[in-house]
Amino acid sequence: MRVGIIGLGLIGGSLAKALRARGCAKYITSFGRNEAALKLALADGVIDYYSLVVDESFADLDYVFICTPVSEIVSFAKKLLPFLAERTVVTDVGSTKAKVCAEMESLPLKFIGGHPMAGSEKTGCTASRADLFEGTRYILTPGKNIPGEDVDAFGELVKKLGAEPVIMPPEIHDSVAAAVSHAPHVAASALVRAAKFLDTRPDERYTQKLAATGFKDTTRIAGGSPEMWTAICLSNRKHIMDAINALHQELATFMVFLAGENEAALLKYFKEAKEYRDGFE
Amino acid sequence: MRVGIIGLGLIGGSLAKALRARGCAKYITSFGRNEAALKLALADGVIDYYSLVVDESFADLDYVFICTPVSEIVSFAKKLLPFLAERTVVTDVGSTKAKVCAEMESLPLKFIGGHPMAGSEKTGCTASRADLFEGTRYILTPGKNIPGEDVDAFGELVKKLGAEPVIMPPEIHDSVAAAVSHAPHVAASALVRAAKFLDTRPDERYTQKLAATGFKDTTRIAGGSPEMWTAICLSNRKHIMDAINALHQELATFMVFLAGENEAALLKYFKEAKEYRDGFE
Repeated sequence: MRVGIIGLGLIGGSLAKALRARGCAKYITSFGRNEAALKLALADGVIDYYSLVVDESFADLDYVFICTPVSEIVSFAKKLLPFLAERTVVTDVGSTKAKVCAEMESLPLKFIGGHPMAGSEKTGCTASRADLFEGTRYILTPGKNIPGEDVDAFGELVKKLGAEPVIMPPEIHDSVAAAVSHAPHVAASALVRAAKFLDTRPDERYTQKLAATGFKDTTRIAGGSPEMWTAICLSNRKHIMDAINALHQELATFMVFLAGENEAALLKYFKEAKEYRDGFE
Repeated sequence: MRVGIIGLGLIGGSLAKALRARGCAKYITSFGRNEAALKLALADGVIDYYSLVVDESFADLDYVFICTPVSEIVSFAKKLLPFLAERTVVTDVGSTKAKVCAEMESLPLKFIGGHPMAGSEKTGCTASRADLFEGTRYILTPGKNIPGEDVDAFGELVKKLGAEPVIMPPEIHDSVAAAVSHAPHVAASALVRAAKFLDTRPDERYTQKLAATGFKDTTRIAGGSPEMWTAICLSNRKHIMDAINALHQELATFMVFLAGENEAALLKYFKEAKEYRDGFE
């Protein structure tokens, strides 16, 4: 199989390594902007070729993975158009799907929206790993114009990467992702900012000394790429605002219970949260 | 050294195991309510004796660790009074310190407030581990009536458990803990509750399928004991309300930026959060 990867960062690099490790790709070509990183990937055998422009090196491919920030996916798809073979399936790894999928519908190409539920607060190809997708879920949001057999084949490829393919409509993906990924990211960042705001004696480093695994787990994702998260928030604005409003409401409810020292209501609040949380593997 | 432990749960059990493993305690006696758990601990050699009432088994000890919910610490200290030797240092492991420390000041005993910054969402002696405190910080909030040499000796004991002793005033502890422990717990629970509220198709389990490591890390602590967290919130009410108000304010600021599609402001928001977060080991 011949594969192209646009953007060889954490996800793009991990896809290349995983496709290679599982024997899925005979040939991998990549577009990127950081030539030093591309040269290193070439020397390490992660890719077979690279280009600093989108050109005929993207002809004659089975799959092209667009692994750029969400704001650039469609413009890269347009740049690919002159070079795509008829069989080529274009996919992306963007964290939001409705906007990209809708815009892709109008382009003459075979598109399957993708969202591997894998990541790291680290970035770049040097942080990429062949096993990044193992045991994770990989969401597929196929376009209307793509044959079912292409979707099935892509699902099989996802399984070879060690992930479980899950098909869902792009709009559902985005509303659920706002609740379980985007709003948690905003909340983690807001918690960190609140801790900084509340720190009246920064020189003593009491805040850093008291922060244990609870704080570290809860706020780990706030260490992620600000650029990536800004793009995600802008591309899923409405759903994220709904999710943060829901979070606001839950916090306000808690404040009423705490202000009133309502022990029974607080206990119920935490119990219901624990019960729902325990339902996640 | 002869040690008493009131409440042989996750922390009490881990203290017993750690004191034993590090050769710090020749004799460990314990009070608890769950006789089956105490019998098991006795059979496993974690403790040497147990009692289902606070009695003379707590006489002639060097340290007594009160490892109960915060709401019960002072009442157990009062029960201990008739039995304490003059040398006995009483300490607790409560997650809030100001209220307990103030009440302890009025009792005729040597008290050092303690808060090991170690834990788990698991509970009970069966989840306890001798290495729970390794590489963690252990906050000490000494009372006014305790000799400095007793504080120094307790600090040495904490080091033997593998933890770093950090001395701070109880009031500072509580305001900082609200920011880095208690508010994050409430936020994690609120995020879980919001995700449940937003889940319009629970039968499809889309929410569970989309939840990846970001959600799991951010909300892990919501799986903690509802009883323990209710007690913590009630005992540190004012500081937690301040911290949640700060969180509310940060979320409101974010909403203004997102509603206005203010890319530069969003980027700055996430960058400042990442920068502060990166300052935590």
